[in-house]
Amino acid sequence: MRPSIVLFGDSITEEAFGEGGWGASLANHYSRSADVVLRGYSGYNTRWAARVAGRAVASIAGPVSAVTVFFGANDAALPDRACALQHVPLAEYKDNLRAIFALLKKRWPSVVVILITPPPVDEDGRLRYPYAHDFSGLPERTNAAAAGYARACVEVARQCGLRAIDIWSRMQRFPGWEKSFLRDGLHLTPRGNRVLFEEVVFALKDANLSLEALPADLPLFSDIDPDNPVKSFEDQE
Amino acid sequence: MRPSIVLFGDSITEEAFGEGGWGASLANHYSRSADVVLRGYSGYNTRWAARVAGRAVASIAGPVSAVTVFFGANDAALPDRACALQHVPLAEYKDNLRAIFALLKKRWPSVVVILITPPPVDEDGRLRYPYAHDFSGLPERTNAAAAGYARACVEVARQCGLRAIDIWSRMQRFPGWEKSFLRDGLHLTPRGNRVLFEEVVFALKDANLSLEALPADLPLFSDIDPDNPVKSFEDQE
Repeated sequence: MRPSIVLFGDSITEEAFGEGGWGASLANHYSRSADVVLRGYSGYNTRWAARVAGRAVASIAGPVSAVTVFFGANDAALPDRACALQHVPLAEYKDNLRAIFALLKKRWPSVVVILITPPPVDEDGRLRYPYAHDFSGLPERTNAAAAGYARACVEVARQCGLRAIDIWSRMQRFPGWEKSFLRDGLHLTPRGNRVLFEEVVFALKDANLSLEALPADLPLFSDIDPDNPVKSFEDQE
Repeated sequence: MRPSIVLFGDSITEEAFGEGGWGASLANHYSRSADVVLRGYSGYNTRWAARVAGRAVASIAGPVSAVTVFFGANDAALPDRACALQHVPLAEYKDNLRAIFALLKKRWPSVVVILITPPPVDEDGRLRYPYAHDFSGLPERTNAAAAGYARACVEVARQCGLRAIDIWSRMQRFPGWEKSFLRDGLHLTPRGNRVLFEEVVFALKDANLSLEALPADLPLFSDIDPDNPVKSFEDQE
């Protein structure tokens, strides 16, 4: 039985199979050993995600090894700007993350849950690519606000004994992260996707879900006996 | 319940989530409505695939709407050249495709099975990228041999009442297909992947599995009532 790795999150998850996307890279990485299941919901914050988490994963029937929970970019939208609808206060964001974790743990007791912080925000990028009908000239998200949600996410992970990927901090260690990793100040470029993919692979490896740790599904071509190929398949029947 | 679309095939399926891959594009296309499940086995011919088909799909538990069956590139390897191990005679190739279809139909009675022919072969490309230890100077696959398997695949589809994607013919309608669509004379470039992705989308649409025909999983952000967002989620609870 191949295990599944579920990606639960907002638009940065929903578009994870786009050009150079971190989800597609994960599916390619585990092409013979795990199924990568997409559960990304563009625009969602943790308030809405906590409500639908059960329904979002209801159709996943097989064994699930790991779930990435990647919210906060929408929660951190400022409450007095154009995306106020999506804003969730910091304390509630933490409660919602805990509720999502509890639900996943109840469904799959031995699942590895990896919390991912919101990415950094490039305010100049947000002003260049504002949402339609936002003529305020003010960014609806700021990096300072995102910082608070990133710290809170890491704190929840520590309290719950979970792995966290602090992509907010990680990305900002690279000079030029603003344009190199973010295509509109918020969503990831192919290079930004590569940084996240690498971090997820590290976290999965740390959770004993590396490529080497997972068995390949059916014999690899290189292991097939050229003198008696069909025997390779009979062994497992 | 999201349905699944299963991709069953050889290396051109196994690498379908690589850079620009047709599988990743499908997963992105159906990001809110269907799960794309990868079952690609590099090097496999239909003889081996028919033996393992049951095990390959055993771990897929939810409803399956469609399966692409994409073999023949290895069956068509010439019996007296470097990849003789993979060769399967034409008559057996057809029997094996029928057996795989019967097995899938037994498992999921209403499943849509789409047969995909092997792609064309660029012999010059094969000579530039020969397999290791092949110093013969002769291509181990030819386009003329692939043609026979493509025709046989289309014939089996017609006999069984299935949709077929004749990617062998389709690709050759484009001038310069040899280098534009094939990176080593056999496997697909990103542009070749786009042609195949488009054909699969057409075939799924023809089978009433278009984006419009499949319901979105959970409310779209654009459908959420800004005056009472939480209500959008309660409606479905």
